[in-house]
Amino acid sequence: MEWTLQKLAELVGGVVPGNGDPPIHDAQPLVDALPGTITLLDSPKNLATLQSRTPAAVVVREPLESAPCDQLIVSDPYAAFSKIVALFRPTQLVASPGIDRRAVVDASATIGKDCWIAATATVGPDCVVGDRVRIHPGVHLMAGSTVGEDTELFPQVVVYPDTRIGARVRVHAGAVLGADGFGYATRGGQHHLSTQLGYVIIENDVDIGANTTIDRGTFGATRIGEGTKIDNLVMIAHNCKIGKHNLICSQVGVAGSSSTGDYVVLAGQVGMRDHVHIGDRTVVCAQAGVAGDIPPDSMVGGSPAIPQKHYLQSVLMLSRLPEMRDQLRQLTHRLAAWEATGSPAAADDGSEGTKSPRRAA
Amino acid sequence: MEWTLQKLAELVGGVVPGNGDPPIHDAQPLVDALPGTITLLDSPKNLATLQSRTPAAVVVREPLESAPCDQLIVSDPYAAFSKIVALFRPTQLVASPGIDRRAVVDASATIGKDCWIAATATVGPDCVVGDRVRIHPGVHLMAGSTVGEDTELFPQVVVYPDTRIGARVRVHAGAVLGADGFGYATRGGQHHLSTQLGYVIIENDVDIGANTTIDRGTFGATRIGEGTKIDNLVMIAHNCKIGKHNLICSQVGVAGSSSTGDYVVLAGQVGMRDHVHIGDRTVVCAQAGVAGDIPPDSMVGGSPAIPQKHYLQSVLMLSRLPEMRDQLRQLTHRLAAWEATGSPAAADDGSEGTKSPRRAA
Amino acid sequence: MEWTLQKLAELVGGVVPGNGDPPIHDAQPLVDALPGTITLLDSPKNLATLQSRTPAAVVVREPLESAPCDQLIVSDPYAAFSKIVALFRPTQLVASPGIDRRAVVDASATIGKDCWIAATATVGPDCVVGDRVRIHPGVHLMAGSTVGEDTELFPQVVVYPDTRIGARVRVHAGAVLGADGFGYATRGGQHHLSTQLGYVIIENDVDIGANTTIDRGTFGATRIGEGTKIDNLVMIAHNCKIGKHNLICSQVGVAGSSSTGDYVVLAGQVGMRDHVHIGDRTVVCAQAGVAGDIPPDSMVGGSPAIPQKHYLQSVLMLSRLPEMRDQLRQLTHRLAAWEATGSPAAADDGSEGTKSPRRAA
Repeated sequence: MEWTLQKLAELVGGVVPGNGDPPIHDAQPLVDALPGTITLLDSPKNLATLQSRTPAAVVVREPLESAPCDQLIVSDPYAAFSKIVALFRPTQLVASPGIDRRAVVDASATIGKDCWIAATATVGPDCVVGDRVRIHPGVHLMAGSTVGEDTELFPQVVVYPDTRIGARVRVHAGAVLGADGFGYATRGGQHHLSTQLGYVIIENDVDIGANTTIDRGTFGATRIGEGTKIDNLVMIAHNCKIGKHNLICSQVGVAGSSSTGDYVVLAGQVGMRDHVHIGDRTVVCAQAGVAGDIPPDSMVGGSPAIPQKHYLQSVLMLSRLPEMRDQLRQLTHRLAAWEATGSPAAADDGSEGTKSPRRAA
Repeated sequence: MEWTLQKLAELVGGVVPGNGDPPIHDAQPLVDALPGTITLLDSPKNLATLQSRTPAAVVVREPLESAPCDQLIVSDPYAAFSKIVALFRPTQLVASPGIDRRAVVDASATIGKDCWIAATATVGPDCVVGDRVRIHPGVHLMAGSTVGEDTELFPQVVVYPDTRIGARVRVHAGAVLGADGFGYATRGGQHHLSTQLGYVIIENDVDIGANTTIDRGTFGATRIGEGTKIDNLVMIAHNCKIGKHNLICSQVGVAGSSSTGDYVVLAGQVGMRDHVHIGDRTVVCAQAGVAGDIPPDSMVGGSPAIPQKHYLQSVLMLSRLPEMRDQLRQLTHRLAAWEATGSPAAADDGSEGTKSPRRAA
Repeated sequence: MEWTLQKLAELVGGVVPGNGDPPIHDAQPLVDALPGTITLLDSPKNLATLQSRTPAAVVVREPLESAPCDQLIVSDPYAAFSKIVALFRPTQLVASPGIDRRAVVDASATIGKDCWIAATATVGPDCVVGDRVRIHPGVHLMAGSTVGEDTELFPQVVVYPDTRIGARVRVHAGAVLGADGFGYATRGGQHHLSTQLGYVIIENDVDIGANTTIDRGTFGATRIGEGTKIDNLVMIAHNCKIGKHNLICSQVGVAGSSSTGDYVVLAGQVGMRDHVHIGDRTVVCAQAGVAGDIPPDSMVGGSPAIPQKHYLQSVLMLSRLPEMRDQLRQLTHRLAAWEATGSPAAADDGSEGTKSPRRAA
């Protein structure tokens, strides 16, 4: 597919101050901007990168004096560029509604209007699927689950029985909702699985990343609050209550019965022990380990997590430890020597930052 | 579905000291106990939570004086409540045995009595499946694998060739047993995959969590010992020998050829390097990194892992480092001043916890 | 299946100095070498392990004086043993080419010669699949994706639209290529998904582990360089550029727009923040957290990551902190006492390694 710069400018309501004729055959970000492509300069600080590349054209807000290529000037470059990129990605189309004959839908399931259910997907007994839901190949919706309208379940998503998924939810490939919690009682040297009669509630407008797992509650709900976004390979254990509008980054693990307030951010690889609570708007920095309750509006780091400011100080201090140990050793020797002789003596070595007593004397 | 409190009491062999008539329409844990529900008080320390809720009834061992609702008294409240919750979760039923016509079972496979093999599951050549095994949709059992009786493989479980799964094993959705180990030999700047002729053995009564991966051995077995329970998103590498009755929590990673004794506990996000051994009954605390052999009956933490007591002391000491550095600096100045003048001098600043020499003089 | 030692020797071009008659019914590594098996001694340091086992025979390079069993002498024992083990694992055969009638292949897809596409796999519109590609059950190749020749996609692999996979690539079960990046803009208290119009490029000769996830770029490519090997449960975020011939171990997480040079090694559970670069040939040690750019040819550890040598020193110093604090406390007291009295005084306690002033006096 090929466009001219002028035609792209018309499409996005922009202007081309120079030559609009050059053919454009792809749209790429700056780091991959090859000849013949159109690219985006979304911040002046990336100007040097632009000048190191040779694209055919660049989308910018203000005319550049020294651009290495033609320019397309538009008031919202990011939105305009998104529109242009979409032209070159025609395959990301939404499938037409319909239930594929190779899908396996139980007779007792209720399916809404204009749904798409792909080949090899299965929908179990008593499931209720809302309007315009899109169920990709290999999704398995087990008995008694409900899915709200406009929700999309990508390939291989597994939904265990009784899961309740809200509207406009997106669950990416391989995510597992509602597997058994990891709770065992040990009797006679054997671990016995505890009760697993709860379920998972995913509220409206939640996104769930690929291969993430959210376990069912013991008796009641493991709940993900409205608008919360969860990245790939995250683990949310049984009985957890995740608040609204959280951002939970990749590989985070939250242990059983823990909870978060609203607008909490858990950065990558954070761990959170069981039965603790993180207050509203708190940010937990990457790889931290939350071992107790954290108040609202905090920023914490380290394992066990402490205020991030203190954690960074500790890390900095750690690097000074060898020097401190040397100072301490030297002080000990000087003081001991003085105590032995009753008068000031030279330090064992003069390497430290204090004045040399010899020279001072 | 609706029950009366009295009918529930009869079901579990309990008594209702007060009014048995109130209708009950759901059973929920304390934190979610809404009007019309029955809930559980399993520990006196949760009494305050109960009093903040307004359920219709509560299951307890001893009569409460100040319950905010009707009571159902029974000797084992947890077991009784589990029975009651099950009444309100009718969809978690076991499918009837049978091989779905849309399952793909190789003619050379041997299938036991009363198995369930769901639509879209595949069973490869020479597999042997024991009696009463339950194979959910989308499970793929590759050539030559064996599955012991009463085992359940949840949707999307992938079992690579030659895997040997014992009896009463539960493998949750998306788990992968027997993929290639991550072993490469680098020759001429290329990484070449090492031999991958081994297999995976899962002994009896093992549970494996969702999206967990257990790689095949190089020549022989990667083995998970009897009764061991593994949580979600865990990685067990090639040639590992995990002992019996271990508890391995979410997101743990065990590198190649490592092993554990019996009754070992690895808490969440623990990492374990290759070729090390952890002795019987040892507990590795969350996020720790095991970098060498650990003796039996230990509790370790930190990365590299040391006795947990020492690790916690280190962390505590870290927070005192800024103070120690200030003390050290002050001592250095005082001693230097004294050495320079030959007599005691005031400290540079009087901020420390020692007596002020000025005042002492 | 049973072989004699002599027949195995002929197969691998080795010699049997003693008795070639004993029947061999399995081949196992040393730790699992039971009676009737043949095993491998690949290093003299494992001789003690061999002597504690009772296999029927052992494959070695040089004759052993004190072997507990018969010997098969061969110049490359590892290769010979691999060949022998393969005899006892007949089920790991490659399926014959063909498209199963229960596979779902879109009419607009282009399929090369001698491909295998298994039952329940789906191939979407406009996909292009090269010669001899092997697509296992439950794989979903979404619209517009391309797969190079001799590539193998194991069960349940999900390939989102527009993904470009090279030749001789192996993607293990449950891996997800091309899911949305975790990028949101927060407006009016809601998190809005950013543009997701990019794709994933997997270059030639890459291996990808089970349940690993690699997200699509925002506008362009998330790229995995030629010859790079990735283990299980790894997360590579949107826009990342992973160099050639990297080794990325299990449970590593790389955040958005980060990049690595060639021959980089990321050990298990390493985390890498967004927008940072790691230079060629650098090794990041297990569980480290990379928080800034790292130069080539480094070895780093800790979180945030510093040169591994310094990190290990820090950890060592940490264990000495309690002792340092005690020394500091004692020095403070001694100096204060001296300042107060104007003459040397005994230490508060004589526990330290310095000479006692009393005895010295």
